[in-house]
Amino acid sequence: MDRNELIKQILLKKSFLCVGLDPDTQKIPKHLLENEEDPIYEFNKQIVDATAPYCVSFKPNTAFYEAYGLSGLHSLEKTIQYIKLNYPNHFLIADAKRGDIGNTSAMYAKAFLNRLDADAITISPYMGSDSVKPFLEYKDKWAIVLGLTSNEGSADFQQQQLNGKELYLHVIETCAKWGNENNMMFVVGATKVQMLSNIRKIVPNHFLLVPGIGAQGGSLQEVCKYGLTKEIGLLVNSSRAIIYASNELDFAEKAANEAKKIAEEMKIILDNNQ
Amino acid sequence: MDRNELIKQILLKKSFLCVGLDPDTQKIPKHLLENEEDPIYEFNKQIVDATAPYCVSFKPNTAFYEAYGLSGLHSLEKTIQYIKLNYPNHFLIADAKRGDIGNTSAMYAKAFLNRLDADAITISPYMGSDSVKPFLEYKDKWAIVLGLTSNEGSADFQQQQLNGKELYLHVIETCAKWGNENNMMFVVGATKVQMLSNIRKIVPNHFLLVPGIGAQGGSLQEVCKYGLTKEIGLLVNSSRAIIYASNELDFAEKAANEAKKIAEEMKIILDNNQ
Repeated sequence: MDRNELIKQILLKKSFLCVGLDPDTQKIPKHLLENEEDPIYEFNKQIVDATAPYCVSFKPNTAFYEAYGLSGLHSLEKTIQYIKLNYPNHFLIADAKRGDIGNTSAMYAKAFLNRLDADAITISPYMGSDSVKPFLEYKDKWAIVLGLTSNEGSADFQQQQLNGKELYLHVIETCAKWGNENNMMFVVGATKVQMLSNIRKIVPNHFLLVPGIGAQGGSLQEVCKYGLTKEIGLLVNSSRAIIYASNELDFAEKAANEAKKIAEEMKIILDNNQ
Repeated sequence: MDRNELIKQILLKKSFLCVGLDPDTQKIPKHLLENEEDPIYEFNKQIVDATAPYCVSFKPNTAFYEAYGLSGLHSLEKTIQYIKLNYPNHFLIADAKRGDIGNTSAMYAKAFLNRLDADAITISPYMGSDSVKPFLEYKDKWAIVLGLTSNEGSADFQQQQLNGKELYLHVIETCAKWGNENNMMFVVGATKVQMLSNIRKIVPNHFLLVPGIGAQGGSLQEVCKYGLTKEIGLLVNSSRAIIYASNELDFAEKAANEAKKIAEEMKIILDNNQ
């Protein structure tokens, strides 16, 4: 999906919500575990159907599938195929946080952007240029580079001063030169909103993927205050707060309610942004 | 496998060679692609059998399996099972370069250290403490954290000054506090040997996993000059130079020859290190 199409979908839906698909068998409803042959896929399918009207993007996190071995990876493939088939206008992010030397990153790019046909993949930038560039070689596909993450550990390296500037700013500034606004986004955690204004000075137009809303405590209003642009420039992700809103029979309905609440808040923000 | 056992195996074999299993269908012998149901697994099996006498470790890189989807991941599982069954004294590294927020890293740890039962997994440290610590919670298992990698892109961030010290030194120093010599190693590229002495000042006893020998141009002698300790402290990896020594019928024999050459060089170095 290209940038224009993504913006079009956001304006059409008045939502820039991304729903994170992190299925954990400790948390998904028991009736699925007991009755379904592939409970992870069934869980995802119902969550996707229920939340699709309120979001423009889905983001399966690969860890939650790899943890269940081949069967989990099969659930991931089926989930992605289901979304591609039924919701082709939703922006599909493989949250994989990959990155390796050039020839190896090329293999990861092939795995996620070609074989699985995701629109985007998240990338860990620690290994530098040749670890990032292979992900930029696919038309209308995106590399979403970790900039400033939402977790406690982001203080250990990302927020340290590198040549007089925080590492995350250095990473965003440097990586932005390897790609452009049409093939690169950055992950910027919602729990660090005051830093968003510094990031916007460096990348005024790039889309930012913002996790940390909901379970991790980030505020949508604050994120938008510092991060929203005329062309939106934000995909805001919520995973746990939506998909685990209930673990009873009504889990999909409750997930839809949570997604709808966020989408309504987004609509007001977008209407005021005109 | 614990540290004592790893050192014991190295001294027994007089080798600290790790063979990287990066199967690429563009490079593996045609007769395997034509005749075998699972050419990747068959390739690995023959490489493992041929090189096992000369190495103490195998390191499949997950990208080279993920690129082939579920069938590739099945080949990876079979390869790991084959090694665990037939070569239980070889140290098995899942070269996955994972790392995410705490609850997600815990899922990756489960996937690789529990389900696949690898001895170790490589970790990208960009997201900090909570992204690394879940990998340290498994007895006799190891987190191998990226310190200074062997690729060109390591100059972009790793070698930049952070608070007056290169980022890679900061990463190694900080991560070393989260684990210890019995559950943590660091990746240090062989193409940056002069920096090894700085690293050894910070982690005098930790094992270092050193890629970049062979195809990437690193020198074993140089690596050992700066990196070898009384308790060895090195696992030196070679992938392409060994596994693609030939792509004809004799590929396993040629791979064994290459591994043997390195092992003989290692034997001399170890004998001189007594």
